[in-house]
Amino acid sequence: MRTGEKVLDRAAATCILTLCFVCLHVTALKSQLFTRLGGLPYSTEPPVSYKTFYFDQKIDHFGFLEDGTFKQRYLLSDKYWQQPGGPILFYTGNEGDITWFCNNTGFMWEIAEELGAMLVFAEHRYYGESLPFGQDSYSDSKHLNYLTSEQALADFAVLIQNLKGTLPGAQHSPVIAVGGSYGGMLSAWFRMKYPHVVVGALASSAPIWQFPGMVPCGDFYKTVTQDFAKSGINCDANIRKSWKAVNNVSSSASGLQWLSEEFSLCAPLKNKNDVLTFKSWLQETWVNLAMVDYPYEANFLQPLPRWPIQVVCKYLSFDSTVSDYQLLQGVAQAAKVYYNYTGSSPCLNTSQTATSSLGYLGWFYQACTEMVMPMCTDGVQDMFEPEEWNFQAFSDECKAMFGIRPRADWAGTVYGGKEISSHSNIIFSNGGLDPWSSGGVTSNISHSLVSIMIPDGAHHLDLRYSNDLDPPSVRAARALEVKYFQEWIKKAKKAHRAAPTG
Amino acid sequence: MRTGEKVLDRAAATCILTLCFVCLHVTALKSQLFTRLGGLPYSTEPPVSYKTFYFDQKIDHFGFLEDGTFKQRYLLSDKYWQQPGGPILFYTGNEGDITWFCNNTGFMWEIAEELGAMLVFAEHRYYGESLPFGQDSYSDSKHLNYLTSEQALADFAVLIQNLKGTLPGAQHSPVIAVGGSYGGMLSAWFRMKYPHVVVGALASSAPIWQFPGMVPCGDFYKTVTQDFAKSGINCDANIRKSWKAVNNVSSSASGLQWLSEEFSLCAPLKNKNDVLTFKSWLQETWVNLAMVDYPYEANFLQPLPRWPIQVVCKYLSFDSTVSDYQLLQGVAQAAKVYYNYTGSSPCLNTSQTATSSLGYLGWFYQACTEMVMPMCTDGVQDMFEPEEWNFQAFSDECKAMFGIRPRADWAGTVYGGKEISSHSNIIFSNGGLDPWSSGGVTSNISHSLVSIMIPDGAHHLDLRYSNDLDPPSVRAARALEVKYFQEWIKKAKKAHRAAPTG
Repeated sequence: MRTGEKVLDRAAATCILTLCFVCLHVTALKSQLFTRLGGLPYSTEPPVSYKTFYFDQKIDHFGFLEDGTFKQRYLLSDKYWQQPGGPILFYTGNEGDITWFCNNTGFMWEIAEELGAMLVFAEHRYYGESLPFGQDSYSDSKHLNYLTSEQALADFAVLIQNLKGTLPGAQHSPVIAVGGSYGGMLSAWFRMKYPHVVVGALASSAPIWQFPGMVPCGDFYKTVTQDFAKSGINCDANIRKSWKAVNNVSSSASGLQWLSEEFSLCAPLKNKNDVLTFKSWLQETWVNLAMVDYPYEANFLQPLPRWPIQVVCKYLSFDSTVSDYQLLQGVAQAAKVYYNYTGSSPCLNTSQTATSSLGYLGWFYQACTEMVMPMCTDGVQDMFEPEEWNFQAFSDECKAMFGIRPRADWAGTVYGGKEISSHSNIIFSNGGLDPWSSGGVTSNISHSLVSIMIPDGAHHLDLRYSNDLDPPSVRAARALEVKYFQEWIKKAKKAHRAAPTG
Repeated sequence: MRTGEKVLDRAAATCILTLCFVCLHVTALKSQLFTRLGGLPYSTEPPVSYKTFYFDQKIDHFGFLEDGTFKQRYLLSDKYWQQPGGPILFYTGNEGDITWFCNNTGFMWEIAEELGAMLVFAEHRYYGESLPFGQDSYSDSKHLNYLTSEQALADFAVLIQNLKGTLPGAQHSPVIAVGGSYGGMLSAWFRMKYPHVVVGALASSAPIWQFPGMVPCGDFYKTVTQDFAKSGINCDANIRKSWKAVNNVSSSASGLQWLSEEFSLCAPLKNKNDVLTFKSWLQETWVNLAMVDYPYEANFLQPLPRWPIQVVCKYLSFDSTVSDYQLLQGVAQAAKVYYNYTGSSPCLNTSQTATSSLGYLGWFYQACTEMVMPMCTDGVQDMFEPEEWNFQAFSDECKAMFGIRPRADWAGTVYGGKEISSHSNIIFSNGGLDPWSSGGVTSNISHSLVSIMIPDGAHHLDLRYSNDLDPPSVRAARALEVKYFQEWIKKAKKAHRAAPTG
């Protein structure tokens, strides 16, 4: 641990999907990130058609003093729904604008007709438009107090019970939870905690074990490194060398200027703190690339070419004789693959690494409370500067930022950690390229808690629209997922027919 | 619904174990009941030996703003514990002083040696000594905000994980939850929500379905009535007639005085409101008798003879020619069986019906928030004055008393209502004489969600010490319960041995 800011980087490392390694002072971070909330989504995928609704949710499901409500947004498509009793695929929204997840979960849109299913995408409280206290939702820890996964799960349960009670033909519809990343954790936990509400869950790329004491803290970055190692000659080795090169070059004012120009930074580097921010931003860039290393041109976190890491690595194939400046020129080119593939970025902004559809500040708060996900690097098995996991420093940073402290063991206590074998009907799908697979369930737990591995897949590739360039493994995964869905639906309908009260 | 006070009676009717039909003005009730908290327990059963501990629990498990802790009391006996790995029987404390439940749960003490089990009795927050804000815990709705079943379950989970992490030899001990009445509901819900913490649960006399829309609201009082009907000739008919007799006699000042003297009331009846209180108190008396209609002399809610309803009914066997005054003389004698069996009560107090070890005010709050248990009477299928269930009036009364409103559907949403078949390893035992069996699980749901009926049993008779006068049905129930416990323990140990990490 080098600085307080650096500690926060590790907090950022727990960002699902985005891994925002922004190196900023706490207050700056807070105000800046807040402006990102409510950003407009974008999609390069086929347009989808849904209706938008708002449901009155209790702000606090677990206490009765706060009796206010807020409008939870949800999107609904019943185009292919076979009522009465057709299934409902329910996306358990994660840390961002639900329309963005809706547009990026083509899998649900593609299987709706086959299953005769209604689609519902429910927004997670405190993200997108579902703000419990409007513009004050992030104003302080008092207003943030209801941003927890337990409250979100309760929102989902109440919403589904309301839909089933009010939509004609939905009363006996089996509901299946679907989610990716943090949304996948939610879908798994939803089945665990509310098995009477959902008959099963698809938890795609859901690192439900990325919590203290469950998996080695270094596995995440090892996977990132492996992705680069296999995508080009010397690629990981050159990134491993680049940190020292940055340190060397940035030790002089002229070096700082050179770096700023070479990377086309919007704000030139001025001091050591800026350099820390810069390195964290680079680190996050590599992590994000590992997450979205898809086999086709796509726009998830950023618009990118197919197999983007291979493209990046073309700029990083130097042999050992390369100079610091040459190496960093390559790194700059590589970074621009990620940040300027379309050629439309006039400059690179080290405080932004991905889509504005994600709610960074909200996730920071969640990482600072329940979602304590230890991360560490050693510079040997991974290509990053060594950094131990330091819970106390992390906790102090959370205290400074939000006035609260994380509870390291709570997620394990409430969601069961590795002791989940008594549950049923959950598919855990993971991509072999995805660093988050390090905290995922990657082998079968029982006949109904199953793992589906997609060796050539990055972050929740299975949830995306199908593509001609999809590897066979993801096609097989999707087919198997649909098979499980059909089985659950069939069993639920059979149980319903057998029930004494129609 | 006749009066606001009367509405509160129905709130009181949802008291587990105690059914306190006290007819008092809200503020009087509040202050009076508070003084009952912390009352000393008593026991007529064999003395038990345990150590008392206090564990630092978070006041709020579901939010991070309130980071304070309180001392949760728990009692522990390891006399028969076979460590390492011997099982732990964990009593999920209900709405009262945990020492009282400990002393009245002889079953656990009697099977500890056979199972080589440690016994733990955990006190429920806001009861006994486990007050989150000390003497301020009941001061207002702000301080009461953390009195919920979800928080209590989280307390139990955190406590168990701490015990397993700190007690040498407990790390791999299978834990079984045991509870009666509301404590039984908690033990069932605990297994449902935290199956990674407890391998199974015995939910004795747990009315987990006594919630809106799950069972007919009149069944509870029908069972009470049946108990009286089969315990003596004309017994239920005379009680049914008695309400009108009270109305008739109390219509004059002299009648009020006669009633007060005949019933040896501590505070003479003065007006119509007092008469309403008086009738509610009588109604609660009959209900309590139905709950504790044990086959041997016992002291649970009150010191009582064996089969107390039979003794009571001896005073209520009049034929149809009886006068109002004669009838009420019989009722007074009957009431004194309940209130003055030992002959030590100088007068009868219409604001108290049972042990002071129960936390009445806390349960009122819980009934006014989550534990919404509809009750109604029709005077035909039961022996009480007709009274419909009126949620709105009940809600208004809760608002007036605590400043909060109940959420009628929440318990069903969070705990699954009748849709619990995906869970496992829960025994639901119920007594045929117990009115709370109306809201209980009285037939098997699956091979591992089983019902055990005890036709001759009152409220959680199976949890009490064995007695020579026990009917065969409760002996068989206990034997079967132990058999299930042994099965769960065996399976847990087998699973542990099979696990890759010892």
